[in-house]
Amino acid sequence: MSTIRIPQIVPTPNEDSERLRKAFQGWGTDEKAIIWVLGHRNASQIKKIRESYQQLYNESLIDRLHSELSGDFEKAVVLWTLDPHERDAKLANEVLKKSKKNIDHLQVIVEIACSTSPHHLMAVRQSYCSLFDCSLEEDIASNVAAPLKKLLVGLVSSYRYDREVIDGNVAELEAAKLREAIEMKQLDHDDVVHTLSIRNVFQLRATFQLYTQKYGNPIDQDIKSCGTGDLESLLQKVVWCIDRPEKQFAEVVRASIVGFGTDEDSLTRAIVTRAEIDMMNIKGEYNNVFKTSLDSAVTDDTSGYYKDFLLTLLGARL
Amino acid sequence: MSTIRIPQIVPTPNEDSERLRKAFQGWGTDEKAIIWVLGHRNASQIKKIRESYQQLYNESLIDRLHSELSGDFEKAVVLWTLDPHERDAKLANEVLKKSKKNIDHLQVIVEIACSTSPHHLMAVRQSYCSLFDCSLEEDIASNVAAPLKKLLVGLVSSYRYDREVIDGNVAELEAAKLREAIEMKQLDHDDVVHTLSIRNVFQLRATFQLYTQKYGNPIDQDIKSCGTGDLESLLQKVVWCIDRPEKQFAEVVRASIVGFGTDEDSLTRAIVTRAEIDMMNIKGEYNNVFKTSLDSAVTDDTSGYYKDFLLTLLGARL
Repeated sequence: MSTIRIPQIVPTPNEDSERLRKAFQGWGTDEKAIIWVLGHRNASQIKKIRESYQQLYNESLIDRLHSELSGDFEKAVVLWTLDPHERDAKLANEVLKKSKKNIDHLQVIVEIACSTSPHHLMAVRQSYCSLFDCSLEEDIASNVAAPLKKLLVGLVSSYRYDREVIDGNVAELEAAKLREAIEMKQLDHDDVVHTLSIRNVFQLRATFQLYTQKYGNPIDQDIKSCGTGDLESLLQKVVWCIDRPEKQFAEVVRASIVGFGTDEDSLTRAIVTRAEIDMMNIKGEYNNVFKTSLDSAVTDDTSGYYKDFLLTLLGARL
Repeated sequence: MSTIRIPQIVPTPNEDSERLRKAFQGWGTDEKAIIWVLGHRNASQIKKIRESYQQLYNESLIDRLHSELSGDFEKAVVLWTLDPHERDAKLANEVLKKSKKNIDHLQVIVEIACSTSPHHLMAVRQSYCSLFDCSLEEDIASNVAAPLKKLLVGLVSSYRYDREVIDGNVAELEAAKLREAIEMKQLDHDDVVHTLSIRNVFQLRATFQLYTQKYGNPIDQDIKSCGTGDLESLLQKVVWCIDRPEKQFAEVVRASIVGFGTDEDSLTRAIVTRAEIDMMNIKGEYNNVFKTSLDSAVTDDTSGYYKDFLLTLLGARL
């Protein structure tokens, strides 16, 4: 469930564009008005505002936001204002172009491939080709080493069936294959990559459940106990993103604020990409696991308009 | 280049629907009129005719064709009248559901994955999910054994970049990797599957060309000389479909008519799926290699309305 608060009577895209235009003009920028408009619209409404803004003022809303805002606030508002598939294509590209990539970076690609709809993933791949002159898979192949490359190429290439069809025999067979790979410590086996990439999420959840019933532990735990390598870590996140995305994103938020300083990019990503999808569940999960509210974590670790914007997406009435 | 002859002034979809309706009514069916209309329209025109027919007569044109026609003629006309992505989804499913699958069957999936546009392949995957309640990849995984499974899942999952961007270094590197796999007879190596699945066709053609320059033989020949197994045969067809689809389809037509009897399903598939894409090139290739025209091969091996329909798609003026 979404946490965005959309007013009961939504202004027309033209009215919203005019409001934004006013916020940009004159002495300084009216950041509150920007938050007020964009923080209370969903992706399809924002798409219409972008189109209407372009038509009315012959300039790109995204470009204008870039020039008016700065810092983490700018990044968050721009990311939020992009089409979700374009946003994910940009997030994936940003990660792949980093000279040093760790699991915290590569998990972004897992999130895009495993915790969004099949249709969305296809749109991300199309956007990626349009924006970056090569396919997402090619950039993974050039920038990530084996065995992570093999797993990630498989995952981003998936087009999972999207209705709830579960085959008990498949669950039985594939739980056993996953078990065998874990016991043999062959986590990059073709069977593992195929199973995690091609099955629909309902089927995979049934397979994971059966795994726990048959072998005693949740599969993500058994994967972790195979070793401390990157493949084990990434596979654990694959299981979370498929089985309980709220777990993955609660962990991302937590990791972004614990310790000294805040990882604003990760915090922004988690909130912006999930606000309209399942942020309510993520809040619940966060509360259960960390015994404190996600909102108060954000309040304590951020400030200024950036904080206000994130809290708006989290459903606060500012 | 296409071989379809579309009249300069195309009747409206409603006029075409009325013509077809008349052909179905009364004593017997007017097959000539059906060929006259559907054999002279392209896929987007036929789509509109299907819609208009449904609206005017509250029945599906496809269903009516099934009930009015029979045999190879029925199969060919129905296949031609389907949306190209739905047609390919059905062809793939038909192959995967066969109890005994040989290379002549599985090559159909290679053709769909490697000799059509990335956008078309995505649409085929979407159609497959809608029609058959699971993904194309799932059906491959359940119905094809390793190592062909691995290759086919990789190929159908591809979304290749579709513009002509060639990187000389990538060609160099990947020609060497392909060579190594051929020398080690490890044709199902991850590097082979990745290279053939993720690169754009222009890049792959450059890689194949460089391979020939560096190692003396065309890569499809070297693959064939690795062994006589199914993987070698299928990989050869992958190279053809990427490098010179006209070669693949000229071979399919040839194989369908040589020897005793005709393989009508393969002949129909080759002509129906390529008539609007590159049938002119396929005719040229056929002529060069087999020293006889593809049209005369069809004339000699088929008969009746089936023959007339195929020749119409091949551009004959009957």
